[in-house]
Amino acid sequence: MTPPRILIVGGGFAGLYLAKNLARRDARVVLIDRNNHHLFQPLLYQVATAALSSRDIAQPIRSILRDAPNVEVLLGEATGADVAARQLALSDGTRLDYDYLVVATGARHSYFGKPEWEGLAPGLKTLEDAMEIRRRVLLAFERAERETDPVARQRHLTFVVVGGGPTGVEVAGALAEIRKFALRRDFRRIDPRDATVLLLEGGPRILPSYPPDLSQRAKETLRSLGVDVRTQTLVTAIEPGFVTAADWRIPSNTVVWAAGNQASPLIASLGVALDGQGRALVEADCSVAGHPEIFVLGDAAAFTHQPGMPVVPAICPAAIQMGQHAARAIVSDLEGRPRPSFRYRDKGQLAVIGRGHAVADIGRFETAGFVAWLLWIFVHIFFLIGFRNRVLVVIEWAWSYFTLQRGARLITGVWRLDGDRPT
Amino acid sequence: MTPPRILIVGGGFAGLYLAKNLARRDARVVLIDRNNHHLFQPLLYQVATAALSSRDIAQPIRSILRDAPNVEVLLGEATGADVAARQLALSDGTRLDYDYLVVATGARHSYFGKPEWEGLAPGLKTLEDAMEIRRRVLLAFERAERETDPVARQRHLTFVVVGGGPTGVEVAGALAEIRKFALRRDFRRIDPRDATVLLLEGGPRILPSYPPDLSQRAKETLRSLGVDVRTQTLVTAIEPGFVTAADWRIPSNTVVWAAGNQASPLIASLGVALDGQGRALVEADCSVAGHPEIFVLGDAAAFTHQPGMPVVPAICPAAIQMGQHAARAIVSDLEGRPRPSFRYRDKGQLAVIGRGHAVADIGRFETAGFVAWLLWIFVHIFFLIGFRNRVLVVIEWAWSYFTLQRGARLITGVWRLDGDRPT
Repeated sequence: MTPPRILIVGGGFAGLYLAKNLARRDARVVLIDRNNHHLFQPLLYQVATAALSSRDIAQPIRSILRDAPNVEVLLGEATGADVAARQLALSDGTRLDYDYLVVATGARHSYFGKPEWEGLAPGLKTLEDAMEIRRRVLLAFERAERETDPVARQRHLTFVVVGGGPTGVEVAGALAEIRKFALRRDFRRIDPRDATVLLLEGGPRILPSYPPDLSQRAKETLRSLGVDVRTQTLVTAIEPGFVTAADWRIPSNTVVWAAGNQASPLIASLGVALDGQGRALVEADCSVAGHPEIFVLGDAAAFTHQPGMPVVPAICPAAIQMGQHAARAIVSDLEGRPRPSFRYRDKGQLAVIGRGHAVADIGRFETAGFVAWLLWIFVHIFFLIGFRNRVLVVIEWAWSYFTLQRGARLITGVWRLDGDRPT
Repeated sequence: MTPPRILIVGGGFAGLYLAKNLARRDARVVLIDRNNHHLFQPLLYQVATAALSSRDIAQPIRSILRDAPNVEVLLGEATGADVAARQLALSDGTRLDYDYLVVATGARHSYFGKPEWEGLAPGLKTLEDAMEIRRRVLLAFERAERETDPVARQRHLTFVVVGGGPTGVEVAGALAEIRKFALRRDFRRIDPRDATVLLLEGGPRILPSYPPDLSQRAKETLRSLGVDVRTQTLVTAIEPGFVTAADWRIPSNTVVWAAGNQASPLIASLGVALDGQGRALVEADCSVAGHPEIFVLGDAAAFTHQPGMPVVPAICPAAIQMGQHAARAIVSDLEGRPRPSFRYRDKGQLAVIGRGHAVADIGRFETAGFVAWLLWIFVHIFFLIGFRNRVLVVIEWAWSYFTLQRGARLITGVWRLDGDRPT
């Protein structure tokens, strides 16, 4: 029997843990990603807000899997699966045969059916997204410094974050800190502390997946940092220079989108049932109905088989557990044993708000403030892939904690200062 | 008397040292740069070859000049000077009045009158250039891994560096090391050690500004690293997939240009005499003829007033000395004293070839090999602006020295793997 050929699409946490757990097994594994790096997404907001560099939170997939001789890494973009022929198509026309197909492609942002908002309000999923947001934020201060009309200047200094989930809270908190500390003495005509940061949430409270009292604590902390938190404020329009939300019309040139997710379009080509966010509804073993040879993992999957939990949350630990589970399921097949069902072990959730402030919801243990923040630091450094990155990130964090500075304040790429918006 | 308004265009070494030396003087200083960061150009080749990140060698100009209350930093692009009206025009239409104008805009590459080569053979002057070269080099290995035709595969694995000056030598040496060490175990179908690195120099020897025996030592060291060094090999054509040089036709998809320089076009708008590289011929005090209120400094200036030295070399120490000199000249004016003449103090030159190898030509002291390399490391860390960057760069260097790995192997930005060239 020739060893089965296993295609994994996506080198995020699910795909990577699956590949690692299949290392040195009797299987030919190909991991396909359109980027050459694995990204530690939970810290992406720190790249967007100039605290860390791209390199600190990313690692080439090839080097992570270097010691797995049966795993091949392919830089490429999967465009669709032909489930009848058991083939995966890539954007360059290649078709790859498979015995197992694992789709772990994560999610992009979704704009409530308004894709035209994307150019005005970038989201935060990739390094390129983070660099784009960093560029816009830093250029906004530069434009304000050059603007003589006080109304236009204030518009440059108004930052709107849409969406009160963990990403929105992290970005809003970090923007508040940049304004207050890092840029304070850098300008001659403006005072960066005059900048306004708004966090808009359509629902009744921020961090809706947390217990209500932690949502409240987070809101109070953000307010003490000077963030204007508005709940029940659903965005209904974004146009150049303005955001309309509930009955507010907010003048702003810099909008960050952290409100909605949509699973990658590759999922649709599998021909399986999807949920409202485009995620595949998976079976109890994370495979898809009628195709035990196809798994969908991580943020691309909707796992609804666990009592007391509507859908397994779209967070790192869930993706890691799913990747480990899929490896166990495939090995069970190879060894002729029945597959186990996936069971999500809830390790809790953590969201950081700012320097010294976080909220933690871990089983029966709830906390907010400095202890939660230390816990957040510990967990994030522990999980950062690569010893070297851990060391560098600790140095960066220590540096910015003690000096209140942000190290990575570089504007690169194409921009026009004289345009009303970045091009 | 109102304090004079001094416009400095360019935040490189010359502009920055001038601004620093005018801090707290009775003058209103505006430093204009189209980037928000000062760049330590001597280490740019390390960003291009994935050893360092952008952030390690760049620092926001605003933070460097934070404690100079009479210095304002403006992000903007100067397009031309009206020397009669004493005004500088920016790309957004703004016109700024000046009492003194200092042009320290450096140089871009020049392509021997063939600007169409630029897309095929990027040069190395900015962070964007470095990221582009890094992207092309890393993608070339990825494309080779996917290519089945052995001839096309070898073309992906052939890297051509045009120009045997210090930049060309540094890039060629670094590419040889990546191939040999960093990528060795990362691929399954290709052996990165099969890659070919060629260094093409039109003249009779590489490092022509060094003594001939050091040129010879550098050539031998490059050869021992496996670089194919060809002198008397002037490039006459670059087309997609091929470089023609002397009577060679070399198949290559990845070409780096390090051959010619051209001063920035802003210089031409001053209406002064230029040399063959577009540099302004400056007077003994670094001002331009007939306009004592206009200085040209650094790589943009051709200073020919020093006996035994044809033109002050286009290197950091010269730019720093010119910046310091211009500050002294302006202060002399303010205090009613005659201006001193500029006198370049030759501190010598250093070029690195690879791990443990460099050449040094310091007055009567010449050396090559490990001692020169230690000297190179010491000088480069000493001059790196910002204590934080120094620490990070030391960690990066120690890491890659002991592990033979390159930390910053990320491909970001827009690319197409299926295209024959990056887009």
